[in-house]
Amino acid sequence: MAKKNAPTKLEQAYEGLKAEVKNGHSSAAMTQIITNLYEESLTYLGDAKRVDLKSKVAGKEYIAYDNDKRISRAINAGLYVPKLKQWEELHALLKPNADLDGKTDAQSITRVLYSIAISVCAAIDLLKGNDQKTPGTFFEHFIASFFTWRVGVQPTNSIQVLSVDEENTFLPTDFIFDLGKNKKKFHMPIKTSTRERAIMLWAHQRLLDGVFGTDRFMGTPVLLAETKTDSKKREVVEICLPEQWRLYQLYIAKLKRIYYLDMPKAYEKLSTNFPPLAVKPFGEFFFEWNSLTPV
Amino acid sequence: MAKKNAPTKLEQAYEGLKAEVKNGHSSAAMTQIITNLYEESLTYLGDAKRVDLKSKVAGKEYIAYDNDKRISRAINAGLYVPKLKQWEELHALLKPNADLDGKTDAQSITRVLYSIAISVCAAIDLLKGNDQKTPGTFFEHFIASFFTWRVGVQPTNSIQVLSVDEENTFLPTDFIFDLGKNKKKFHMPIKTSTRERAIMLWAHQRLLDGVFGTDRFMGTPVLLAETKTDSKKREVVEICLPEQWRLYQLYIAKLKRIYYLDMPKAYEKLSTNFPPLAVKPFGEFFFEWNSLTPV
Repeated sequence: MAKKNAPTKLEQAYEGLKAEVKNGHSSAAMTQIITNLYEESLTYLGDAKRVDLKSKVAGKEYIAYDNDKRISRAINAGLYVPKLKQWEELHALLKPNADLDGKTDAQSITRVLYSIAISVCAAIDLLKGNDQKTPGTFFEHFIASFFTWRVGVQPTNSIQVLSVDEENTFLPTDFIFDLGKNKKKFHMPIKTSTRERAIMLWAHQRLLDGVFGTDRFMGTPVLLAETKTDSKKREVVEICLPEQWRLYQLYIAKLKRIYYLDMPKAYEKLSTNFPPLAVKPFGEFFFEWNSLTPV
Repeated sequence: MAKKNAPTKLEQAYEGLKAEVKNGHSSAAMTQIITNLYEESLTYLGDAKRVDLKSKVAGKEYIAYDNDKRISRAINAGLYVPKLKQWEELHALLKPNADLDGKTDAQSITRVLYSIAISVCAAIDLLKGNDQKTPGTFFEHFIASFFTWRVGVQPTNSIQVLSVDEENTFLPTDFIFDLGKNKKKFHMPIKTSTRERAIMLWAHQRLLDGVFGTDRFMGTPVLLAETKTDSKKREVVEICLPEQWRLYQLYIAKLKRIYYLDMPKAYEKLSTNFPPLAVKPFGEFFFEWNSLTPV
């Protein structure tokens, strides 16, 4: 995030996140840092005007925040509950190995995590236009911290690759969560959207399959949304390429899941067509993760 | 390119290119349009200050243009001959099926095409900061027109994919040059740089190999350069990932060539290490293309 004269409280909260992730993603401190970022984002958005956008997506309504200089990304109004209370209720449940059954459900978790993530991203949009990197980095660490809490191990970002002729090298990867011997490992790219770069999700999975053998790593990307806003017309579309995704799933590699916070309509049917590709709201992960890992 | 009040002559020349490519990439008109764009770019750069950059790349010196508002991308001074005369000499040779042997050489062609491409991109950098799309689109059509001239067929941008259950669908692709029955077909992505997206080159090749069988399409991407300029420090680096490229070549698909106008030093050795990956200056294509196509 570019420094203006004095950093805003929002910028300070973001710097706090960057400093904390050096210690890992699962400490109690992370919860406090997310609370702090969420609060500062809501305060920042509160100074802007909430405006309705024209939705070109059937069944979804979108709003945005406008501070006269810039307009934020689109926010799915039906999912958006920008209240600290819901987040406080959720993080009270986030104890190690906690059983969530009966205490909350997938839909509620998706809603809370979406509300936090989109608030922070929208606030950064208003603070600084054209900055893709800051929202991307925030989102990556945000999701990784929930994943770390749920599976109980810290992620790594590189992996050793054997070489016959030369020294072994380390391959930089997306987040890898290694649950131990005789468990499948999670391979988790985390992005705010995929657009024309979705093929990279399958290509990285193909590389891991090639180096370590098929089915050793499960590809389970987590994405925020696929909306695109025309800021002049104030129109929102979802950019989805289900036919291309089917070809990637057939010919490049098999992804185990694709999780979204704001699940695009066009991907719902991929689960039931050939080749099966399970695209789901991220909240479901918290209830099904344990069933995915046995070899 | 964003319109300001009145479009500059450079913008008009670029709009001419976009209009002409609707008729294909090989007409005599394209030569005139490239001449026009080159001239307007040199005029535009002539109004700016030529400045030296600090090179962090062994054996290469870089300059840039600075118009007080913005600084252009880095230009490899050793390759840069921004004179219309060399271009006029080259385009005089560009007759259908022309034999270039003895009339010019790979190094001269690379130098002329680099000088044109980097002049246009640098001029667009000065006209409008943060615009990746316009230089990318220009470069794509610029390279495709020389390729079209050399191989004598027009490219396509999509390809029919068989489906057992449903209607056949068309897959959007990078440029495909189909030289006819019993010839390999060229699959040619054209990008100004790859950075962290290089894996997409191999993934698209893998998809074609999967759908149509290995070795039916030859992957031969063409790239401008891999430089990155720190505009505050005025320093230039080349971002290269040769170890990762070797893994892509081993585990995702085999690319036949990777051509560069400003060939990065770090990729020179890939040709002679395992797995072989021939990264070459683009000028060499004009002399070797015919030897690549037999089945």
